[in-house]
Amino acid sequence: MTPPHKPHPAATKVACVMVGLPARGKTYVARKIARYLAWLGHHSRIFNVGNYRRNAVGAVQPHDFFDPSNPESVAMRKEVASRALEDMLLWFDRAGDAPASGAVLTNSPISPAPNRSLKTESVTGVGRAGPGWVAVYDATNSTAERRRGIYEKCVENGIQVMFIESICDKDDIILANIKEVKLSSPDYAGMDPDKAVEDFVRRISHYSEYYETLDPAECNCQIPFVKVINVGDQVIVNKVKGYLQSRIVYFLMNLNITPKCFYFTRHGESLFNVAGRIGGDADLSPRGQDFARKLPTLITENLGGETQLTVWTSTLKRTIQTAAYLPYTQIQWKQLDELDSGVCDQLTYEEIAEKYPQDFSERDQDKFNYRYHGGESYRDLVQRLEPVIMELERHHERDHSILIVGHQAVLRAIYAYFLNYSLDELPYVKIPLHAVVKLTPKAYGCIEERFTVDVPAVDTHRPSPHPALNAKNKS
Amino acid sequence: MTPPHKPHPAATKVACVMVGLPARGKTYVARKIARYLAWLGHHSRIFNVGNYRRNAVGAVQPHDFFDPSNPESVAMRKEVASRALEDMLLWFDRAGDAPASGAVLTNSPISPAPNRSLKTESVTGVGRAGPGWVAVYDATNSTAERRRGIYEKCVENGIQVMFIESICDKDDIILANIKEVKLSSPDYAGMDPDKAVEDFVRRISHYSEYYETLDPAECNCQIPFVKVINVGDQVIVNKVKGYLQSRIVYFLMNLNITPKCFYFTRHGESLFNVAGRIGGDADLSPRGQDFARKLPTLITENLGGETQLTVWTSTLKRTIQTAAYLPYTQIQWKQLDELDSGVCDQLTYEEIAEKYPQDFSERDQDKFNYRYHGGESYRDLVQRLEPVIMELERHHERDHSILIVGHQAVLRAIYAYFLNYSLDELPYVKIPLHAVVKLTPKAYGCIEERFTVDVPAVDTHRPSPHPALNAKNKS
Repeated sequence: MTPPHKPHPAATKVACVMVGLPARGKTYVARKIARYLAWLGHHSRIFNVGNYRRNAVGAVQPHDFFDPSNPESVAMRKEVASRALEDMLLWFDRAGDAPASGAVLTNSPISPAPNRSLKTESVTGVGRAGPGWVAVYDATNSTAERRRGIYEKCVENGIQVMFIESICDKDDIILANIKEVKLSSPDYAGMDPDKAVEDFVRRISHYSEYYETLDPAECNCQIPFVKVINVGDQVIVNKVKGYLQSRIVYFLMNLNITPKCFYFTRHGESLFNVAGRIGGDADLSPRGQDFARKLPTLITENLGGETQLTVWTSTLKRTIQTAAYLPYTQIQWKQLDELDSGVCDQLTYEEIAEKYPQDFSERDQDKFNYRYHGGESYRDLVQRLEPVIMELERHHERDHSILIVGHQAVLRAIYAYFLNYSLDELPYVKIPLHAVVKLTPKAYGCIEERFTVDVPAVDTHRPSPHPALNAKNKS
Repeated sequence: MTPPHKPHPAATKVACVMVGLPARGKTYVARKIARYLAWLGHHSRIFNVGNYRRNAVGAVQPHDFFDPSNPESVAMRKEVASRALEDMLLWFDRAGDAPASGAVLTNSPISPAPNRSLKTESVTGVGRAGPGWVAVYDATNSTAERRRGIYEKCVENGIQVMFIESICDKDDIILANIKEVKLSSPDYAGMDPDKAVEDFVRRISHYSEYYETLDPAECNCQIPFVKVINVGDQVIVNKVKGYLQSRIVYFLMNLNITPKCFYFTRHGESLFNVAGRIGGDADLSPRGQDFARKLPTLITENLGGETQLTVWTSTLKRTIQTAAYLPYTQIQWKQLDELDSGVCDQLTYEEIAEKYPQDFSERDQDKFNYRYHGGESYRDLVQRLEPVIMELERHHERDHSILIVGHQAVLRAIYAYFLNYSLDELPYVKIPLHAVVKLTPKAYGCIEERFTVDVPAVDTHRPSPHPALNAKNKS
């Protein structure tokens, strides 16, 4: 049976256009959206007008550059905004030429389309209609007129638009945001912090003069938008349609502006780890049991400000046994089970190389997309872990944190999400046995701490034959 | 290693309190929410004040019964509303005594708690914190005062509240709803349709006199609510927190008031079907290939008003080969792969009974919760299929339908969702080979059509040893 060739459906193109006064967390939201989609295998890219401005006129500009009564700077700012928009349209124009890389790119000018092709034509697991193309146009876009221009340009080019407005009228949140994020921006490099805050507050006031909030009557009453008010206190969703848009809205609703830290560790060394076998459902080795007994102290000694903890394990014995002595609520997630290695389950790498030599080398060529026969690929795994990521983004109970007792591949995927690794690098992230990692997400990154106990374990990491993919690994 | 026993976290209790004038689709939304949650393994139940009223004062009441200037009927309607509320609180009080059954119960008075216990203590796959308890309190709840009373009663009892308001100002939609739903209600049994519509419109006007839409300032500005305006044109989400609440909001955002039909079929007969083996990734048998060749005609002859079709297959050969001749866009979903039978993969039922006699009989005792060693249970499968259900609820492109070419267990789960089967019945739903099923969801049910071709196939259905669970099956 030779099935006739079926054309792919045209890729979905969505422009998320940010709206909001300065210091409302637009860039944070833009980066989170782009990261989330890239991790899920979509193409995503941020077009940050601030970067275009700094490239054009230099980093340091005092607040009066943003004064709407200054015709020269108004023209300049219009010019850089259009340049960013043109670049975005150019990027969409390329949709279909380039594979999903999973890395979030943010700088201009856009680079030539990469010269590789995706090994698999399968559109599995990136939603109903294959990988989408999502650009985030990050600027204040503070007037209905400006937005109408963007909307019309996009629609002309077959691009779906969704506006995302961040509104905040709580001065303490705005001030905290200015202090945490803006003072470290290139705009204020080397300036006295108090002066910088004062200048920034005046910059905001220039925008406030003519700021118009999104109105359902804009763009002939057809404007799709999400308004996020006071850090998610209220969310208004207007005329939003489409699969990707619906995913983005759900993500926004769960997104926390002040994300919480969480902890993870692999299970203790298992009998299969010792034997060099993958998969299976083995018990812990004596050293693994030792780690399980020492884990409660390791955790409580490093709990920081958290007083409550919920432990997530998989349904496999080695994680449940590892968590057995932890005096906290425990939840088993089937989604946290290790990558399913199908016919290779319970084999050693040597046995796989012997029994399935072709597959073994194919996997080395493109580990992210390689699917074990009858099992999963890393790409499949990422889809399965999406609800876990959503829960980690959503949880924000005070003094309450999460500890994941997981598996190598699963923790690679979670770690790669928070540390912005590309999908090529993801399958090679080093997650050693017998160590606890604490991740504390910050506005534009993640603080990482590692805690270890003196219980030796085997090393289960197989480096990539492509040295570049191992480069970022911590030892 | 004997892990110390960990207590379960207290179950989450959520009351979804409907708000809205008559004929705004409240009962439809209530039923969809309850069904969705029950299918996911949560406990859910609807408390419909209209049913309490009909039980108390009889079905047929003319519009003046709803006149707010009629003190007798006002008192009576308050009384039945409180009775429904008390029953709801009583039901929550029982949380923890009864297992999740998956069946949506809707009538009063509430029945004694079932006397069975869930076989598994695992809280896998029903969200972060185990099965929740969700009641939907279905009434107009048209004033802030009434809502405040409900809110306070719930909060006193440790129940989280979320109000769900349906607003519609489009007369054509309201009239269509009256005609489709209300005229068949017991309230208008035997009445002339035109008179019934007139009476119903007057009933609405009684409520309109004092109706107050939800206001963020209600309940000390702490009121969690979702407003769905004009059938999802705009959705406003206010102060909503919590895992279950966030799932419900996402579901509401994707829910279509006018759902579309869709089609499904199992793959053609495979070589494993013929050999009586389960799982695996076998090719089609000659008869299965014959079915694949006849499928395009079978589909096009029965396409009704749909002119475009998207075909969803799994990643397994037997579904891809079955869809090979269909001249439509095709998408492979890993989530649609057959239930993973773990160590039993590729065995016959006889071999399973011989190799794993204990497991075989355990599975017969509780097929929904039985997880194949190293594989999945039906409960796991339902979690994995949740995004598929969400996509089926969401899709509503004009003239465009979906055909799923799937597997026995997967289609059982999807079918059970739309036809409101209990989780006990779900694993025994009969889905024959070589037949196409068309489901057309309606307000309170589903129209089912079956199309067959004359290509014989083996019967892969194993009935339950409990005859009651087979009762609903079509032949």
